[in-house]
Amino acid sequence: MEPGEWALWNDWMRAQRLLARELDRALQRDYGISKAEFSVLVTLHQTPKDRLRVGELAESLGWEKSRVAHQLTRMEQRELVERTDSGGRRIDVGLTAKGRDVVQQAIGGHAENIREYFFEPLTPEQTDAIQAWSRQILDRIEP
Amino acid sequence: MEPGEWALWNDWMRAQRLLARELDRALQRDYGISKAEFSVLVTLHQTPKDRLRVGELAESLGWEKSRVAHQLTRMEQRELVERTDSGGRRIDVGLTAKGRDVVQQAIGGHAENIREYFFEPLTPEQTDAIQAWSRQILDRIEP
Repeated sequence: MEPGEWALWNDWMRAQRLLARELDRALQRDYGISKAEFSVLVTLHQTPKDRLRVGELAESLGWEKSRVAHQLTRMEQRELVERTDSGGRRIDVGLTAKGRDVVQQAIGGHAENIREYFFEPLTPEQTDAIQAWSRQILDRIEP
Repeated sequence: MEPGEWALWNDWMRAQRLLARELDRALQRDYGISKAEFSVLVTLHQTPKDRLRVGELAESLGWEKSRVAHQLTRMEQRELVERTDSGGRRIDVGLTAKGRDVVQQAIGGHAENIREYFFEPLTPEQTDAIQAWSRQILDRIEP
């Protein structure tokens, strides 16, 4: 690659990292939750009854089951989720009232931050370019 | 945010993840090294003598010292790097001949993959837009 290409690549990677870091910090600062906790809460909140089998949650997040188990233990201690034994080998996990309250607020705040950092500075041409680039990558890697 | 904005945001995040995963997998498949190992090797290779103090390496990578120490232990076992006690409390780490050979090949292959996945599909207008967006984010978050 040419030097200009490396510079663009490095800027672009760095911009992504900084943006992700800002969004993660805002979740922690404003709602007291980590990005991993936010992912768990949002995934549960997107289901009809705010509840999933633990195995389904792991699959949906793309995490190892042991990671999910550790994460859920910490989140149970903070009263954000609760696990229930639903008979047989089935363990469900669902949002508590506190977890539901936290995730609803955090989704709103997270959307505001994405708007401020990501969308507001974009011109329509830049938006189109980023959309087109994203589609190209998705088509190319996972057609 | 509007539904179209969420769709763009999700596509963009997903495209980034897939691209990073492809690049990491290629490093592992073609050169037998993880992304973390690549980062260590490249950082050392960018210094005048392929050698740094362990503390400087940690700072440059932005990693905790304990993470660097564990990583270096594994990489010493694979004969990619070697630590030397340079007196006082100073421990240096440098590339071995094998490490130098691996990183030179991996940098070339990595650049080819970045070109193929990232640059080739981009039009000049898209390249300009992504460059401008990256600069905006960097200026906004770390002016």
